[in-house]
Order: sequence, then structure tokens, then C-alpha cells
Amino acid sequence: MNSKNKNTSERTIAKPTLSRTLRHTAVDIDDTFWSPWQRVNRERTLYHIYEQCRQTGRIAALGGDWPQEFIERGTKGDIAHLFWDSDIAKWLEAASYSLATHLDPDLDALVDQVIAQVEQAQKPDGYLNSWFTAVEPHKRWSNLRDWHELYNAGHLIEAGVAHYEATGKQTLLNVVRRFADYIDSMFGTGPGKQRGYPGHPEIELALVRLYHATDEVRYLNLARYFVDERGSEPHYFDKEALARGEDPAAFWAHTHKYNQSHSLVRDQNEAVGHAVRAAYLYSAMADLAAEDGDESLLAACERLWKQLTSKQMYVMGGIGSSRHNEGFTQAYDLPNDTAYAETCAGIALVFWAQRMLKLDCHRRYGDVMELALYNAALSGISMDGAHFFYVNPLTSDGSHRREEWFGCPCCPPNLSRLIASLGSYVYDYGDDKVSVHLYVQSQAQLDIGGRNMTIRQETNYPWDGEVNIRISIDEPTVFTLRLRLPSWCVKPELSINGERVNLAELEEGGYASINRSWQKDDIVSLELPMPIERLYAHPQVSADVGSVALRRGPIVYCLEQADHDVPLHRILLSAQSSFNARYDPELLGGVVLLEGQGMALSDDGWNDMLYRKIPPTVKPFTIRAIPYYAWEHRTPGPMTVWIREQPATLEATSVESS
Amino acid sequence: MNSKNKNTSERTIAKPTLSRTLRHTAVDIDDTFWSPWQRVNRERTLYHIYEQCRQTGRIAALGGDWPQEFIERGTKGDIAHLFWDSDIAKWLEAASYSLATHLDPDLDALVDQVIAQVEQAQKPDGYLNSWFTAVEPHKRWSNLRDWHELYNAGHLIEAGVAHYEATGKQTLLNVVRRFADYIDSMFGTGPGKQRGYPGHPEIELALVRLYHATDEVRYLNLARYFVDERGSEPHYFDKEALARGEDPAAFWAHTHKYNQSHSLVRDQNEAVGHAVRAAYLYSAMADLAAEDGDESLLAACERLWKQLTSKQMYVMGGIGSSRHNEGFTQAYDLPNDTAYAETCAGIALVFWAQRMLKLDCHRRYGDVMELALYNAALSGISMDGAHFFYVNPLTSDGSHRREEWFGCPCCPPNLSRLIASLGSYVYDYGDDKVSVHLYVQSQAQLDIGGRNMTIRQETNYPWDGEVNIRISIDEPTVFTLRLRLPSWCVKPELSINGERVNLAELEEGGYASINRSWQKDDIVSLELPMPIERLYAHPQVSADVGSVALRRGPIVYCLEQADHDVPLHRILLSAQSSFNARYDPELLGGVVLLEGQGMALSDDGWNDMLYRKIPPTVKPFTIRAIPYYAWEHRTPGPMTVWIREQPATLEATSVESS
Repeated sequence: MNSKNKNTSERTIAKPTLSRTLRHTAVDIDDTFWSPWQRVNRERTLYHIYEQCRQTGRIAALGGDWPQEFIERGTKGDIAHLFWDSDIAKWLEAASYSLATHLDPDLDALVDQVIAQVEQAQKPDGYLNSWFTAVEPHKRWSNLRDWHELYNAGHLIEAGVAHYEATGKQTLLNVVRRFADYIDSMFGTGPGKQRGYPGHPEIELALVRLYHATDEVRYLNLARYFVDERGSEPHYFDKEALARGEDPAAFWAHTHKYNQSHSLVRDQNEAVGHAVRAAYLYSAMADLAAEDGDESLLAACERLWKQLTSKQMYVMGGIGSSRHNEGFTQAYDLPNDTAYAETCAGIALVFWAQRMLKLDCHRRYGDVMELALYNAALSGISMDGAHFFYVNPLTSDGSHRREEWFGCPCCPPNLSRLIASLGSYVYDYGDDKVSVHLYVQSQAQLDIGGRNMTIRQETNYPWDGEVNIRISIDEPTVFTLRLRLPSWCVKPELSINGERVNLAELEEGGYASINRSWQKDDIVSLELPMPIERLYAHPQVSADVGSVALRRGPIVYCLEQADHDVPLHRILLSAQSSFNARYDPELLGGVVLLEGQGMALSDDGWNDMLYRKIPPTVKPFTIRAIPYYAWEHRTPGPMTVWIREQPATLEATSVESS
Repeated sequence: MNSKNKNTSERTIAKPTLSRTLRHTAVDIDDTFWSPWQRVNRERTLYHIYEQCRQTGRIAALGGDWPQEFIERGTKGDIAHLFWDSDIAKWLEAASYSLATHLDPDLDALVDQVIAQVEQAQKPDGYLNSWFTAVEPHKRWSNLRDWHELYNAGHLIEAGVAHYEATGKQTLLNVVRRFADYIDSMFGTGPGKQRGYPGHPEIELALVRLYHATDEVRYLNLARYFVDERGSEPHYFDKEALARGEDPAAFWAHTHKYNQSHSLVRDQNEAVGHAVRAAYLYSAMADLAAEDGDESLLAACERLWKQLTSKQMYVMGGIGSSRHNEGFTQAYDLPNDTAYAETCAGIALVFWAQRMLKLDCHRRYGDVMELALYNAALSGISMDGAHFFYVNPLTSDGSHRREEWFGCPCCPPNLSRLIASLGSYVYDYGDDKVSVHLYVQSQAQLDIGGRNMTIRQETNYPWDGEVNIRISIDEPTVFTLRLRLPSWCVKPELSINGERVNLAELEEGGYASINRSWQKDDIVSLELPMPIERLYAHPQVSADVGSVALRRGPIVYCLEQADHDVPLHRILLSAQSSFNARYDPELLGGVVLLEGQGMALSDDGWNDMLYRKIPPTVKPFTIRAIPYYAWEHRTPGPMTVWIREQPATLEATSVESS
């Protein structure tokens, strides 16, 4: 498909040899870690989300039957339910992914039924938005900055593509094509078109997908227009505010940085504003950089990636530290208690990383994709599949709990579509290469240089770093197999058909790059030792000074009160504290937990003193850490990712009298 | 005066030999520390507060001329200006204190003018409240819980007493007597009286003062009634809520603990609710314990004192950690960044401590009085006398600034009256004893067993612990001189007329208790070495784990960004860090600053890493600490009281590659 764009854009400079995502339908996962998550997603989460959408009136609202309460709130300025269409769209997308790998006739029927309602909600001109059709039709397209019409459209388009690819049915695809055609007729640089673009990016990457699904280059061009137009002057959001009779300066966020329209995207150097908007935009930029071979877009992505991952990312892959803008503040501002780290932002970082990998197979992207997936994103859903975190703090006093639903429930269906489509994050491939980004026990079918190839991974990842990869190909074929060597792994080992190879000679951008003539039943054994790491944050991160975080392999750990009979803030590690990793099949669905000797501050001898000249004494104390994603599944209580290190002077035992 | 009560209350059990406050008018302060604060209070603060009261409409409102804006806000439920009368009253009280020691004809005239306006605002029945006279007269006494009528009355009464004692003029005294008489006719257990009491205690201690000024025992009885009635069932605040047609459960604070009416005061064991209300109530309880020799009230005060100072007090003497209720939460909940520690609460703690000292001359009270005075209270006012903190956090990102005024400006006039009357906190005395609670260079006149005595303190306190006390008395007289030996001082030394005495033999409750026949020109030299202390908090105080606070003598220190070119959060102390104290006459009006060798976390070698396995290295770094009260007088920037201690492992220098 990559060849299609060469006649369609004057922008094309130098087309790199790009990799393609191997779709999740080609990857059959039978992994002890991920298969249970996918099963609960199929059996519980998808039905739970549908039921919530139904009970809250979202399904009925599609047919114009808006609950009176929400009409009142909406017309008074509460915009949360202006994205109701997107909740349904993401559910349709997630359900489609699941149907593609596990046919469920009930779910299939439910999906068709909802699609029929979506279809009937479409206006003759192609427009599709339940709010601006039934409640405020006169306000159509009057506030692209805040009212999410193009965002909703984007999610509908993704759903249409996913449903088509999953089922071959064109019902929803045709709907979203008509909608996209209508949007294309409304926005752009051509005569009579508005020079608008979405306040919440999303449609850009959706249009790239639609282009791939339909071969219709207008969709790619429209995506490119939205990205290129963003931030141009005179500023569209100011103009449309004036047209509404509003003072552009009265924008609540006070800055176009909030939606990344403060400058042309190619001039952006720093992740700013709302984190989900940002990462969706950057994902689209990466898509277009790939489509067009656009070096300037790629360079912007690279600058943004470097700045974000080296200055603005939590240790568990969460991004967007502030509740105020649901997004970024300044470099190194990563508070733990008030961390926002929205689940959707962690998911969006996975999306962006996947796209960067296709442009540049470097572990700087693969490692972050893995980190965000196993920690910042997965934390967002409970093991029962029906409770969710919107916000993912790195410490809690015990009051932060997963919830069944939210007023703005963007995260639950986003998690559902990520988990259902997990297979598509494992590989990408080209004519002469296959890259393995994630280690997940699975079997995948792909076409390599015209030959059918099967790649089988066997592993207990993420609990164990041994990965055996079996290649099955009909006749010997030369291609490059690239295996990510995670940066957390200091001493990876590799053998091919039982023979140890020198990894130093093979490493390229943090991947073992094995070019050879592969034969049927070749076995590559990758050994990724997973020592327990103690991580320190950059000293500018004030929240983490004096503390360490524990990580093993891709899994970031935390302490939960449920495992400790001393308040967490009194638990300390010393430099000498060592930990053991132990798999407990009974705990939290089966996890490797870390157990080690630490210290606990003792209150012996304090009596009624509140302050004294002698530091508290310490006692040996057994610390148990569990995976961060698995917290808040037992007795509610405090949690912390960062653990204090023991100060040097705590061995004193005498007590001051007062 | 203590003899007066013996015929007035059946409650009297066993009258202790109580001490009397030596009024500030008898104490002539010429102290290098406090005299400048008193001067700026006289010359700037008192005029500044008057001017703010005038400009905001408070003075005009006394005459019924309420600004329309506030009428609208008030009738919509904003109650901040229902305490406007108290702002004026506290200003009158503060001005009176100042006039008593430094006559200022302009101020005197201004005070008389305002008093005339207060007088004309009084209703024929004695009622006096500008809001409930001019704006909502039908609501008089309908919400004692929230609407501050008795609180305002209390402050007016204190002002009336202060003005009378300062000037001998009875104008305001007569007004407040009429008001008190009217209140006495309205509230109490007698027939036709309401069983109400104030939501915000204050009138109780005011009535005790009015009793002392007038010998009218009804005022003492009324004070006792208010204290005894508090918290009785059926609950008055519930009854009056029902009478207003409100659901008592709809009280915003959700608990009678907010205003300490959750139980009878004698059953209270723990400081709860709004901190200023609490400490004013406890002050009145101490007053009444003294008047009545009421052991059960004293016992409650002692329990509350112990609980508060051992579980709920910031290291600088601030109390009330939560913004939510402007008050107390649970034991050891002492966050630094969100610390409320209202200036008025620090002042109220001084009030309470002064009263406890009269009941029990123990340094547990004197030390806290000194601590709160020099730190939690004094921090509330700028050195220019015209900017104030309402809230006193123990760390700041630089955004917390003193302000000229507040919507609820309770703190500025409270500070003004404290500073103007500082002399009255220095001593108390009885027939055969004089106690020195504060060390302030000054000369005091008092009557000891019928003889005129002059006591002269010479000292550079709080910067230096040498205090020379000269006794002048006409003829040799036996009495006990008690000198507080602060608990921060490990090795106090005492000599009398040049001869060293054994303090261990003299110490009683943390005071050197010197009983002898005192003669003219006796000199007592007290040497209170002031080492620089490193204080640790009880390990249950999660906010302070791993950190130390610096104190020298009564002064608590902080770090300000203005003195450091490395972000404060990167500054560390080690157990080996030693500090020198140095007086700098040019800095912040002349302070002893602490300078020492600490460490600063280095960002060398981090490059673009955000997390790594090697802890940050440290570099030697010179730390400079300034008195907490003096912060926020230079370039705005971060501040912290608690300083991190250096973890044990920070000497590593190698850097991980990634």
C-alpha cells in the first residue's frame, strides 16, 4: 500500500523502506499473561461498556432521544456528553477487533444493531453527530476547538475501518466514508471550504486508516491538511470564537498550547497541553511522515519524543502530570500524589510508539511502548474487566479506586480496543524483514517477500525473559529478523538453533538484527535476564528525590498497604536491601512479586514527643512489592511506587528526653 | 482581683494561688528584636488596617451605609463580611494597646472617631451589629452557629476593655457593657432566655476581661454559661437550624466538631475543627479554670494541650493543618505544602499558652508560647508592617506571597494587637512570685507583696541566650523569681550577683525557681546556650520522613531560594553537616543566619536520562538558612522548612549508559 502515495502528494521527498504493522488478526495469542486479559475483555468488558452506554442513554441518544438531564446540562455548557458518539465508536471498534479473532454471535448481533442505529443517525449530507443533529443543529461546526465533532468523527471512522476489516461488512465503513466525504467537502484549502481543524486530534490518524482501507487518497490528503493547517495564522480557533461572538482570550485554557495549535506542528519542540490530544496528534504526524517520507514531520516527532520521554514521563510510562489541563506542565514536574497520567494518555503513547517504530526500528520507541502498555495503560483496568482508573497516580492514600464508569468515559473503551487488538503491537514487517517489538506467546502468519512465514513465540514474559522463537517458512529465505533488546536488560543472550551468537555484532538501535537465510524450524532463543532494578529519577524531579522505584523487566512495582503492617511512608530501603523475585500463581491473577529486606521507621521511644533531636530508629522489615498495574485489587489502602531510601544516620538508638 | 469570685460561683472548689498577667503598660520594651516590630506596628500597620477598613466600606457600614456589592453577596450567603465589626473591633483594641504605651494624638483622635461611630451604631436595647441592624434585622440571633454575632460582640468587648485600660475613657466600655448586659438578658438558663452560645468562641474570654475591668460578676457568669452550655443536648445549633427551616444535617461542615460543640467541653480530649475557634475556646476554658478553680476544666485543658502539642502542631508552632475546615484533621497529619497554619491560630495558641502558664508555670506552656510567637504568628506579617500571610505553609513553590488585605482579614488586626500588647506576655506575678516567660529587653514595674519592684532585662534574645536580669526593690523582700529554662537549651547556666548557682536544685517544671530575699541591684545572669538543633519529626508524620528542620533557640529556620543557586529540593544535609550561626545586621532587618556545608544533588552525567540505576551524585554545597518568620521578603521563590537528609548511598559516581 505504501506505493500508492507516490503520485498523490508533491510533498514526497524520499520514501523510506517502511515497515507495515502485522494486523492483530494475523497474530494468534496464547499467552499466560495476555490471554486472560483478552478473555475478560471479550466476556466482560465489552458487554459492560455496552450496558453502560445503554443505561446512560448513549444508545438512545444516537436515535435523537437525548435524556432531558443531559440536554439541560449540555445547553448550559457542560460538554462531557458532546463526545457520547465517540464512546459508542470506540466500543464498536473494540468489539470489532475482538470479533475478528473470537467470533461471538451475540456480540456480532449487538454490533450490527448499534451500527444500524449509527446509520440511521446519519444526515442525508453525510453529517453524523447525535448532539448537533438532535439538540443544537444550528451550532454544527461552530466550535471545532471545544465541541469534539471531528474527534467523534475520527473515532467513528476508526470503528468503520475496524468493523470492515474484522467482518468484511461494509455497513459502517460506508457510513463513515460518506461522513468523511462530507467533512472533506467542508474543510480544506479549496474554494468555499473552511480552514478548520479539530481541537482534539484523532480524525487525522483515522483518515490515514480509512485511506489504507479504501485506497481513496482524498482521505490521506484531508489528514495531511488537518495536520499541516494546525496552528497557522490567522488562528482558526480565534476566528471561530469571534464568529460565535466570544472573546478568543476568554478560552478557558488561556493558551492554544492546550490543543497543540500554538504553532505549526513542524515547529513544535516540546509536548504541551492535553496529553491525549498531543499523543494522538503526534501519532498522526508519524503516520504522515511515513506516508509522505516527510523528513520535517519525522524530525518534529523525534524532537517531541525525546523531550517527552526524557523530561515528562512517569517511571511507569504515564504522561500528562496535571489535572488542570489533563496534560503537560514543565520539564521534570512529575508529582506522584497528584499525577494525572490519564489511562488514555498511556494508551496514546503506545499508539505513537508503534508508529515511530515503523519509521525507525529503535528500542527508544519499543521500550516505551512496552513500558506504557504493561504499566500506565494496563493499570487503568481491573482484573474483573469492569472497573477503571481514569487517573493513575503513583501514590495514593487509599482513596483512589477504580470505578465502573465515568461522566467522561473515554478510558474504558480505549483500553478495550487496545487489549482486543494487542496482537497488532507485537510485530511489524517489510519485504525483507520482520521486527519483534513485544514478547508475547503467540503464533503469527505473515508474508515475507511473497513467501508464507509462521513465527511462533514461546515465553513466560513478562515474568521471565526467556523467549524461544520458531520460524517456519516453506523454503529457505533471506530476511532480517529483528528482536528488541530492552534497555533494562544488561546482558541479553541469543542463540540460533542452539548456537550462541555474539550479540554485540548484531545490535542495531537496540535490536538484534539477524540477517540470514532462514529455514523451516529455525529456533532463535533469546535470554533476557530480568534483574530487579532500583531506579532513581533525575534530580530535577523534586517528587522523587531520596526515593527509588523498583522495576523488573518491563514491570514497574509498587508497595501496597495490604502487604505491610507498617504505614508505607515509614518503609525505607537501604543501599544494601536486596530483593528476590518469586512467582505466586495465587496472587493477583498470578504475578511475580518482589520480596526483600528493608527497614521500617520505629516509633519506639517517641512517647509523646512530636519533634526531637535524635532521628527515628529503624527496624528490619520485610518489604513486598507487587506490579503497579495490579494495585487496588485488595483491601483499599495506601500505595506508593517511589520508596524512600534510608538516610545514613538512622542507626542511632538513643532517645532525647524533653 | 482573684478574690472577687469567691462569693460568686458555687463551682469554686479549691482556689489555687494564681498568677496575674503583668499588663503590657507596665512593661517598657526597648528590645532590638521587638521594638522595631512595635514601631512599624504603630507607625504603619495600625494606619494601614484603618485605611483598609475605610476603603472597603467597613467604617461606613458601621453607620448603616453598606456597600451594595456586599449586601448582594451577603444576602446570597457569603458570610465573610458578617465579621466586619470584628475587624474594626480588633483594630480598636490594637490601637488602644499602642496608645497605652506610645501616645499618638492622631491615632487617639481616629480611635475616638471610630468609637463614636460604634456608639451611634448601638441600638437602644444595647444590640450592636452593623449587618443585622442595617441589612437583615429580622435575622438577629437566628444563626449563632455561622453568623458570628457573638464573636463580633466578643471582639467589641475586648476593644472596650482595652480602650478603657489604655486611656481611662469609658466611652467604648460603656457601649460594650450595654451590649453585654443585653446579651446577658438574651442567653442563659434563666426563664425566657435562649440556651444559645457562639459558633465561633471569643466572647467567653472577652467577658472574663470585662468582668475584671468592671467587677461585674454577671459577665463572668455569662462567660461560664457559654462554656458550660456548649455541646449540651438537645443541640442548640440543630434546634436553631430547624427554626430557620433548615435541615441540621445540611450544615456544610457536617459535624459539630467544626465549632467544638460536639460534646460538653469537659468531655473533650482532642483538638478538633476550626483551629482559631478551638484555641479561643480553650483560652476561655483556662480563664474559667483559673477564676473558678475548676479542676475539671483544667484537666480538659491539659488533655487538649497535650494532644495538640504532641500530635497536631507544626514544628514552627502552627496549628490547624487543613484548609478544608481551617483546622485540625487527625493526629500526625501535618502536610507542609498544603499546611494551613492560619496566622490567627498561631496567635490563639499564644493566648491559650499565656493562660495555661497562669494556672501552671511549666515550660510546656512557655516554650510553645515562645515558639508560636516567634514563628507561626510573626511569619504572618511583613517587615514593612503592611503585608500579611493568612496561611503559613512550611514549603512553597514561590507562589505564596503576603498580601495587603484579605476578604476575611482576621489576621492583620490580630497580629497588630498581639504585637502592641507584647509586654503582657513577658511576665506574670503573684503576691510572692514573679515569673519570666519571655526574654525581652525591657523594664517592668510591678507590685510584689505590696512593694514596688522594678525588673530590668538586658538581652539580645532571640539571637543570643545571655539574659541579665536586674532587680530593683526598695527594701529586701522574699519572693520567688521564676525564669523559664527553654527545653531547647540543654545546658542553661545561672548566676546570682556573679555567683554560679546549681540549676538542678532550682528547677521546677522547667523554670529556675529562685526563692530568696531580693535586694536592690541584685543581678541574675541567665546563660541559655543556643546550639543549632536538627529536629526530626515523629515517624508517623509522613510529610517529614527523611527530613530535618533547623532551630536555634526559639527560632525555626527555613531555606529560601534567594540564598541558593540550586533548586531547594536538590539540597541535602548529611549527618556530618555542621552549621555556624552568624548575625548579619544587614539581612532581613538583622537576623542570625545559619551557614553550613551540605550537599546538592548534581545533574552531571544525566544527559537526557530521566531514570537510571545509579543514584544522583552529590557535590558539596553551602547552605544558608534564615528565620522562618523572615521569609518572603526578597526575590520570590521556593522555601522549605524541612530539608532532606542525604541518603547513605549517594557517593557513587559512575553513570549508567542507556
